[in-house]
Amino acid sequence: MAGAVFFLGHALRCTVRRALPSCSPACFLGAGYSKMAEVTAENGYNHITRVLFCGFYWSASQKYTREYLQNYPFIQIDEVALDDVPDVIDKYHICVVKNRRMDSKVIAKAVQMKLIMQFGVGLEGVDIDAATRHKIKVARIPGSVTGNSASCAEMAIYLMLGLLRKQKEMDVAVKQKNLGEPTGDTLLGKTVLILGFGAIGVDLAKRLRSFGVKILAIKRRWTSDSLPAGVSNAQSDGFDGLIDKKGGPENMYEFASEADIVVTCLTLTTESAGIVDEKFLSHMRKGSLLVNVARGGLLEYNSVLHHLESGNLGGLGIDVAWTEPFDPDDPILKFPNVLITPHVAGVTEHSYRTMAKVVGDCALQLHAGKPFSGIEIVN
Amino acid sequence: MAGAVFFLGHALRCTVRRALPSCSPACFLGAGYSKMAEVTAENGYNHITRVLFCGFYWSASQKYTREYLQNYPFIQIDEVALDDVPDVIDKYHICVVKNRRMDSKVIAKAVQMKLIMQFGVGLEGVDIDAATRHKIKVARIPGSVTGNSASCAEMAIYLMLGLLRKQKEMDVAVKQKNLGEPTGDTLLGKTVLILGFGAIGVDLAKRLRSFGVKILAIKRRWTSDSLPAGVSNAQSDGFDGLIDKKGGPENMYEFASEADIVVTCLTLTTESAGIVDEKFLSHMRKGSLLVNVARGGLLEYNSVLHHLESGNLGGLGIDVAWTEPFDPDDPILKFPNVLITPHVAGVTEHSYRTMAKVVGDCALQLHAGKPFSGIEIVN
Repeated sequence: MAGAVFFLGHALRCTVRRALPSCSPACFLGAGYSKMAEVTAENGYNHITRVLFCGFYWSASQKYTREYLQNYPFIQIDEVALDDVPDVIDKYHICVVKNRRMDSKVIAKAVQMKLIMQFGVGLEGVDIDAATRHKIKVARIPGSVTGNSASCAEMAIYLMLGLLRKQKEMDVAVKQKNLGEPTGDTLLGKTVLILGFGAIGVDLAKRLRSFGVKILAIKRRWTSDSLPAGVSNAQSDGFDGLIDKKGGPENMYEFASEADIVVTCLTLTTESAGIVDEKFLSHMRKGSLLVNVARGGLLEYNSVLHHLESGNLGGLGIDVAWTEPFDPDDPILKFPNVLITPHVAGVTEHSYRTMAKVVGDCALQLHAGKPFSGIEIVN
Repeated sequence: MAGAVFFLGHALRCTVRRALPSCSPACFLGAGYSKMAEVTAENGYNHITRVLFCGFYWSASQKYTREYLQNYPFIQIDEVALDDVPDVIDKYHICVVKNRRMDSKVIAKAVQMKLIMQFGVGLEGVDIDAATRHKIKVARIPGSVTGNSASCAEMAIYLMLGLLRKQKEMDVAVKQKNLGEPTGDTLLGKTVLILGFGAIGVDLAKRLRSFGVKILAIKRRWTSDSLPAGVSNAQSDGFDGLIDKKGGPENMYEFASEADIVVTCLTLTTESAGIVDEKFLSHMRKGSLLVNVARGGLLEYNSVLHHLESGNLGGLGIDVAWTEPFDPDDPILKFPNVLITPHVAGVTEHSYRTMAKVVGDCALQLHAGKPFSGIEIVN
């Protein structure tokens, strides 16, 4: 009871969006009591399993999770403004982190938390050691299971084609009635370097293969075939026939100099942050293209800007940016050969419905005292 | 000589763009004498083989052909305004038709013409019978040889992905800083109907296959495998493993009702004109997508508009339109789920360079009195 009353106090101060479990996801209650809160009051606080979605962005994540759980009134889904998360996190059992930074201070407040998870794969904002110390599990949803990696691979191809066809110039040509302009380019015949060969990289290679593309891939550790990590002669028969040439970090610059297009599919770690820097970009061919569907921090902003200005970089396609949402007036977006999408590579019907089911199932499992399934626990 | 002088008269009246064979393609002479004309006057008219490009659109076609022929001063490349073609066509030996209508009246004036060809495959504007009567060969450049079909297949996939990801809504989301919106959709898991299974259709199927797409195809005559034309049970083992289900014209509506996406890859004939009409669109699933990379006339404008208004058509992606260049203020382009590109599906570096070589080689062959090669003569 005390908890519920205390929570009400927070709900009045914070921006909390909550839906009645049985009503349509559109009928949000901006703040304050919900029918759920009444149920809580009646049944006692412990009978409700509370799931916190951090922030209002990627709204389909909470919408679809609510829809999946609409017949389970004992699971409560709330979305809370990013800044308000530290004030309310003590009331929740599962947290979907999205782009909220979860440092040790915030984690220390999560006194009832059992699971911090991502609606996807990226956990770079979570202090995993701190979570471990507080006996909180940290997990991602593997992309290959949910269709997330396929979805991101498709977005990478969309951005590549948009750069090759000069999307912004096409729009101008339509407006100015310049039929048959601009002259674009094909994937056919190109060499693509996939930087980071995880689930997205594999799904990307599978699709690019049919376009008549030569594929180079860099991965820290190649485990599923014969080439040991760190072998300097990276040529091999390929990875399940998917790639033409593979290498480790030591081959990165050499491969960059052979590619017409570089796609970053790495997770963001202290090691990978800023990996596409001045040195990397200097190794890229003049006029080559760069696509990022992973995390903005993989690219060094100033170096990218510099290489766009010099014309060394022939085009940039990004679904992710250095700050998000990205300033639409940022100088980088002014270049005619730069395309940006609003961090939606993984935001598709299929992928989001599947991930919503995973989150929903975790809540149901926790409520029933069963072990978690469908997630990759990293601690 | 008389011809050359006569041509000069035309050049002064008409909008003719000509380049010196040895200079950069940028240095056009708007009208009047060129060094080429002087060479003509010196050497006699018959020593120059003249190639006429109809109209200024798809400017890379003439630019690349000029570049390919820059060391052959006896081949002259001119581009002439569409309306002026009938006035000057008597001076030319090869004509690249682009979107100029070549009716019997125009053809009758082409007294020195040996070859009317397309910079690509579409010959729907050419009165082939009239050309035959005048002993003029008519030819297309096979798309599978030049990369044109691959180029068009890539554009079809680009338009599909643009519709699935809601390109216009993504642009708004970026401007309004709505991170993680809109929820898009993937090719993965979709059923795609390819209407017309020629070179583009095959190249499209090859690529779509790797996206986890179910492929249906309609072709008038299936020749290269066991299924006879017109067999009503169209299910078979597929066309080289590329498609899941194939049929003839009689299966068109049935297949339309099974598809999430329909792509028109037909040549435009009296038979195929307006094939996507009220009846066809009524058979398409509610919310399904339509992509056209072939010819605008395949779609019935009013029916398409009607089905966009009703919401039955979930999206339209067109590289070609009913009139070209298409009015950028046309009501159809106002829908948030309609994308248009400026008839550039085949306009890519590789494809256009290769086709320019084919045109250039035809001119050289004609000049040398050799038979044509690299083209598909249709009469």
